[in-house]
Amino acid sequence: MNILIKNADVLTMDPDNMLVLNQVICIEQGHITFIGDEEPLFFIPQKIIDARDKIIMPGLINSHTHCAMTLMRNRSNDLPLETWLEEAIFPVEAKLNPDHVYKGAMLGIAEMIKGGTTSYLDMYYLHEASVEAIKETGIRANLSYGVSTSSKVKELGKVGAYKYCKDFLLEKRGLFGNRLNTSIEVHSVYLVDYEELALSAKLAKETNSIIHIHLHETQNEVENCIKRYGKTPLQVCEEVGLLENRVTAAHTVHVNDEDMQLMRDRGVVPVHNPSSNMFLGSGFANIPKMLEIGIKPALGTDGAASNNTLNMFKEMHLAALIHKGYNFNSSAIKALDVLKMATANGALALGFDKIGVLKKNMEADLIMIKKDSLNMTPYHDPISALVYSASACDVDTVMVKGKLLMKDRELLTIDEEKVKFEASKVSRDLYT
Amino acid sequence: MNILIKNADVLTMDPDNMLVLNQVICIEQGHITFIGDEEPLFFIPQKIIDARDKIIMPGLINSHTHCAMTLMRNRSNDLPLETWLEEAIFPVEAKLNPDHVYKGAMLGIAEMIKGGTTSYLDMYYLHEASVEAIKETGIRANLSYGVSTSSKVKELGKVGAYKYCKDFLLEKRGLFGNRLNTSIEVHSVYLVDYEELALSAKLAKETNSIIHIHLHETQNEVENCIKRYGKTPLQVCEEVGLLENRVTAAHTVHVNDEDMQLMRDRGVVPVHNPSSNMFLGSGFANIPKMLEIGIKPALGTDGAASNNTLNMFKEMHLAALIHKGYNFNSSAIKALDVLKMATANGALALGFDKIGVLKKNMEADLIMIKKDSLNMTPYHDPISALVYSASACDVDTVMVKGKLLMKDRELLTIDEEKVKFEASKVSRDLYT
Repeated sequence: MNILIKNADVLTMDPDNMLVLNQVICIEQGHITFIGDEEPLFFIPQKIIDARDKIIMPGLINSHTHCAMTLMRNRSNDLPLETWLEEAIFPVEAKLNPDHVYKGAMLGIAEMIKGGTTSYLDMYYLHEASVEAIKETGIRANLSYGVSTSSKVKELGKVGAYKYCKDFLLEKRGLFGNRLNTSIEVHSVYLVDYEELALSAKLAKETNSIIHIHLHETQNEVENCIKRYGKTPLQVCEEVGLLENRVTAAHTVHVNDEDMQLMRDRGVVPVHNPSSNMFLGSGFANIPKMLEIGIKPALGTDGAASNNTLNMFKEMHLAALIHKGYNFNSSAIKALDVLKMATANGALALGFDKIGVLKKNMEADLIMIKKDSLNMTPYHDPISALVYSASACDVDTVMVKGKLLMKDRELLTIDEEKVKFEASKVSRDLYT
Repeated sequence: MNILIKNADVLTMDPDNMLVLNQVICIEQGHITFIGDEEPLFFIPQKIIDARDKIIMPGLINSHTHCAMTLMRNRSNDLPLETWLEEAIFPVEAKLNPDHVYKGAMLGIAEMIKGGTTSYLDMYYLHEASVEAIKETGIRANLSYGVSTSSKVKELGKVGAYKYCKDFLLEKRGLFGNRLNTSIEVHSVYLVDYEELALSAKLAKETNSIIHIHLHETQNEVENCIKRYGKTPLQVCEEVGLLENRVTAAHTVHVNDEDMQLMRDRGVVPVHNPSSNMFLGSGFANIPKMLEIGIKPALGTDGAASNNTLNMFKEMHLAALIHKGYNFNSSAIKALDVLKMATANGALALGFDKIGVLKKNMEADLIMIKKDSLNMTPYHDPISALVYSASACDVDTVMVKGKLLMKDRELLTIDEEKVKFEASKVSRDLYT
């Protein structure tokens, strides 16, 4: 469908052309074919959207989550990571079946779309069920499948699980008009053994996959790894060949200077999860230093069990504020840095080339935010307003690959009441 | 009007009866006359509200703001406090007239009501205009009037300004059925001279007023005060007799152990402003320590120029998270502590006895939050959900003194479009 968007203030996230006002955007076959001042002569739209009173920006990219954990929202507070995992999470996850994962994923996707998130990187179990949810809802995602942490390893053994994982990666990648990408889950250096780390590195090379890993989340994790291997987790990853692949590393809170250099040299994309890192008492990742030395951090919500939302506007707000406070420096990080983490850098984290920036030939993953709500009035600097003043509920319209997923805050591909009802219902199974 | 609320899950903030489900609330002449399981026999309501699918809690209390600064939203980012004040704020404030203050206050009040705030403590200029806004909108407030920092000092001299301030305090206090309280602004120990501090202490005694002051906001403030007086700002306040009165002290970020004891012994109510303290690079107030030694901190947004919203849900979220991260301790502060800061402790900060807790004989300042939005589903622990998952836009209904100010997210005492239009218009005056 050819779509024409008129009267749009556009935050493109393209460094050459960052903020352009009162623009026309043409979309053909899911791609942006024009952004400019005047409507092109030979463009015949099937649909026209008037974006007066809206700011348009690339859809937000949630670069680290466990989507179906929405079922566990607001169940377990005030616990440190290890206790939280061992006592509150793993016993519940042991009960999960594909129906739970599907319904939890539907809830998480609905919440994300409603808050302006158009893509997510998901590390979870029983991903066959997530594929269905992605297909139906129209969102874009990268699903991370693990060899030993997948549910297949008990049934098939390590060799069988390896084969299953490889098939999953290659069969699912590119589905739904390239809305679905796949990656390899390596849960962490503390949960996965050395052999498995090496196997995952090999599989990543064979399949040209991104590796998605939890890395340097807590001080304990780093200390225990040094006891076990004589090296930090990042150094173990380097030794075993993991870092020869594209790596998206969630958390990276406790990283020394040497590890920071290694991340930069290997092009690791760290994912900042401010809510979760605070909620679990892990600490503050040194994002200002990463930006300073040329690392490109992305931004994520983590799962709802350690957040307890999948709201990228909340994460942007936190990311823009906490480093200023922690460093006693009001310019430690700028609003635009945070927007980049939530868009262009997210595209790197997920391995999609044509999202995260709005310009010609990119895919039309975009969101429209009301600029006339009370909290955005008066409308001064849009970049500041989006980070410090906007809320998820100011998002009005959401589009992925040129398809509208939300308009005037109404979800178009999801029955919201049904999703809420069903998620609540299956969630009760997990806690009885 | 007699109002009956049915089917209500109520977070009362009353320690004896914190969370009660499926309740009936009776409201007569602005007061709560009953909360219980079954409708009392002899109560004849003129209005019935079904609160199914809502959580009811006391209205949020914003214990430190400069309401009309909404006009300066998103204008000046990434600056430290001193530069921000001297270069971005004071020159703009020099242009303010009563029309600006009225329209800025209307915008701020509209934003606060829409986000569940029912009372605020305001330090600003030209408060005669704020009184009008409070009268019209139905919100509850405490306005802080300063002797030397008021606009009257140039015109009337210090003695005249003292008299004017005293008259303002006594004439306006208790207006609108006790929705309006008044207090004395002492901007800070760095802006107000010693004579003025002593005068304010005297005036507070004469008028039985709360003193509202910025205190220990930055490390610079404390160091400069030690250079000037050989004492910390809190110690100067003690010496001059200010702390013999009720004191509400915004920020208290850089406070040593001795000062912390002094705050406790004198019953100072500190106000935590996490957004603003991070935005301006000031740091993190030690709220966990304050709670541990029995201080009762309140919570505030500060002005929109250093925030850039007046959203108490954002502040609660920040207050619940940052101390966990900063202290590497996931139980450094609990969700319920934060709710108390935003309600019962706020009542202390503002000097209203009958708000902040929902029980018999208290005034009916309450809000209803949708518990069935996507981000609140599944509905598990309501206390956790309100702090970690709710957003300002989940607030559905707002009542002050038994009068509805918002129903189904529609403001009932404010013409929202007009307020936005007029605030935007006068804001342009300030920047041209």
